[in-house]
Amino acid sequence: MTEKENCCMRTKERSEAELRDLVNRLNRVEGQIRGIKGMLEKNAYCVDILNQVSAANSALNSFTRVLLENHIRSCVAEDIRDGKDDKLEELLGTLQKLMK
Amino acid sequence: MTEKENCCMRTKERSEAELRDLVNRLNRVEGQIRGIKGMLEKNAYCVDILNQVSAANSALNSFTRVLLENHIRSCVAEDIRDGKDDKLEELLGTLQKLMK
Amino acid sequence: MTEKENCCMRTKERSEAELRDLVNRLNRVEGQIRGIKGMLEKNAYCVDILNQVSAANSALNSFTRVLLENHIRSCVAEDIRDGKDDKLEELLGTLQKLMK
Amino acid sequence: MTEKENCCMRTKERSEAELRDLVNRLNRVEGQIRGIKGMLEKNAYCVDILNQVSAANSALNSFTRVLLENHIRSCVAEDIRDGKDDKLEELLGTLQKLMK
Repeated sequence: MTEKENCCMRTKERSEAELRDLVNRLNRVEGQIRGIKGMLEKNAYCVDILNQVSAANSALNSFTRVLLENHIRSCVAEDIRDGKDDKLEELLGTLQKLMK
Repeated sequence: MTEKENCCMRTKERSEAELRDLVNRLNRVEGQIRGIKGMLEKNAYCVDILNQVSAANSALNSFTRVLLENHIRSCVAEDIRDGKDDKLEELLGTLQKLMK
Repeated sequence: MTEKENCCMRTKERSEAELRDLVNRLNRVEGQIRGIKGMLEKNAYCVDILNQVSAANSALNSFTRVLLENHIRSCVAEDIRDGKDDKLEELLGTLQKLMK
Repeated sequence: MTEKENCCMRTKERSEAELRDLVNRLNRVEGQIRGIKGMLEKNAYCVDILNQVSAANSALNSFTRVLLENHIRSCVAEDIRDGKDDKLEELLGTLQKLMK
């Protein structure tokens, strides 16, 4: 299946390296969230918890940035080269949500 | 153990209702992160994933806000009433991190 | 006029040093905004403008942080010491707006 | 001068309507900043000032979003169509800064 067909079908085949990197990033976030639950259950001090939440938040933002970059470099660039501007408009909508 | 002793020891005993609410919020975030991993593994389209990430991010921010509010209402207010301003300075440092 | 009367009347007398620092920070932001208008009028490249906007945004955020810190250190702490918790609730509402 | 030459020279000729819209947005922000200075000089209450800062911040963010959208729709799309990917990489760098 080509990149182009991919995008039309609202699916996307990612390279194995890309997929592994993205899944690893999410595993890290998931571990951080579980760690924060553990802290709550051990009556940890609020500020210590907030510092861990800050770290989880940064990790989730990095995931977002990497996924967005991959998306722009592949689907969006591909479609613009093909003279289709829908992806461009969709991207602008997505950026608007992410920058709120 | 009183609230005051709590804060000195960098632990905090939360009411059962508060603890349950906080843990539930984290469970929701954890579920969302796992859902996003599932989407990646099924080759979901980037923009659909980004929308889910946005939702997980909002849920994590709500958790932060609730925890911060509880902290200000209990530990910080308590210490200020006792004429100790360390918690106040610590809070300002935490806010600075959270507002970046 | 005491600090306490101040807060009740929804006004606040600031020290001259504090006022000057805050006004200087806003002057800087105002200068940056005017600089960005000048760039637009000289047809500057979008990315160069966006970098300047980023700088103006950081300066405005610093102003916010300083003002918020002064507010917490004076009005909020003062009121809590007096056993009035309205300021506390008001602060939580303000934080919620600022952290969105 | 064509769009393409424009982008190479790191300048950009904007339509009169686009330029006017962008300048108007900045004029609004500048007016808000001046208003906040006036509030400080009249000893306004911190929370009332913080609400105005919030509004100025939103207006500045809207300006950023509009400028970024114009940039993506014109320079970036144009260059991708021409097979040049520098603008794409530059855009990703800009997004990274704006999403911090």
